[in-house]
Amino acid sequence: MDLDEQMRFVNEAGRLKGVLRQTRLTEPARRENSAEHSWHLAVMALVLAGHAPPGTDLSRVIAMLLVHDMVEIDAGDLFVYADAAQHARQQQAERAAADRIFALLPDGQAARIRALWDEFNERGTPEAKFARAMDRLQPMLANVQAGGGTWAEHGITAEQVLRNVALIEDGSAVLGRYARDLVERAVGDGLLARPPE
Amino acid sequence: MDLDEQMRFVNEAGRLKGVLRQTRLTEPARRENSAEHSWHLAVMALVLAGHAPPGTDLSRVIAMLLVHDMVEIDAGDLFVYADAAQHARQQQAERAAADRIFALLPDGQAARIRALWDEFNERGTPEAKFARAMDRLQPMLANVQAGGGTWAEHGITAEQVLRNVALIEDGSAVLGRYARDLVERAVGDGLLARPPE
Repeated sequence: MDLDEQMRFVNEAGRLKGVLRQTRLTEPARRENSAEHSWHLAVMALVLAGHAPPGTDLSRVIAMLLVHDMVEIDAGDLFVYADAAQHARQQQAERAAADRIFALLPDGQAARIRALWDEFNERGTPEAKFARAMDRLQPMLANVQAGGGTWAEHGITAEQVLRNVALIEDGSAVLGRYARDLVERAVGDGLLARPPE
Repeated sequence: MDLDEQMRFVNEAGRLKGVLRQTRLTEPARRENSAEHSWHLAVMALVLAGHAPPGTDLSRVIAMLLVHDMVEIDAGDLFVYADAAQHARQQQAERAAADRIFALLPDGQAARIRALWDEFNERGTPEAKFARAMDRLQPMLANVQAGGGTWAEHGITAEQVLRNVALIEDGSAVLGRYARDLVERAVGDGLLARPPE
């Protein structure tokens, strides 16, 4: 029965609360998990929707954000500044996880949710680009709040962060500018190593 | 500027990750926080939308669920089985929190998000009723998964749980039936004390 499959998926979803990310929270001091990260991104999309390109379908953005990290139940979270080989392995693990996890749902619904996940990863639509912008912006806000956070911990440079700013600009010009200013202030405040001249 | 106010709200929202609820998670064993709880409810609404009454606006349901607990940043979480006097005090604290927190947003937006929060609490619309059904159903699923969870911990009886089942039925007949069966099985499995004859 559809409902039994849906409930199995809902129970499985809860496991995302146990997947820890790099981002550090300040109160209480601990690593963020991917479930609360996903909630925060969805709230951001709701509140910042006015900065998306005209015509962006907010409900699809939010649905994408709600499910985008569920593959981490199997694949775990990979630090955004990991190397290319690690990202390639992660991509493969995430695809296998998507095959398993979304298939818990009734067939038609599994295909619809999987399509949302693919759309997010392919970054081809304004909705996916705006959703990705949320995903890149939130850890920057957290790092500034934590007085350096994972930037300080891993010796990340402004140059590396600015590559993520480009992805934010791709989703929203206004938020891209905001992120660029934030990086500049973080460099000024000594939270981020200055890019080489 | 609007964006600065929105970012203050987004940063404030992150504090919900520090508000602990009664619900126990199994892996890792700890209490659930209200941010991850809110994410789980939004995922449930996305997946279970087909069991809402025809015409229910899913995007409003999800928006409500994303913000419904943000008042707990100030007011904390109250156990659903607390007494009437505690619930009355909580209601007052939550209203004061809503006044403060949603007012961080630009005026028009603050009013729209506050209206969503009021709608959830007033339970007058199909959207609010369906959203409340998610909020009641999720802890039941968690308790069954945890082999009793807060039911066992606080000596909750089937009679008390069935009062919450009525709220689920009010949002969705199908999910209400599911919850009623779940309570019956939980009684059969000894996870819940049998109601007096």
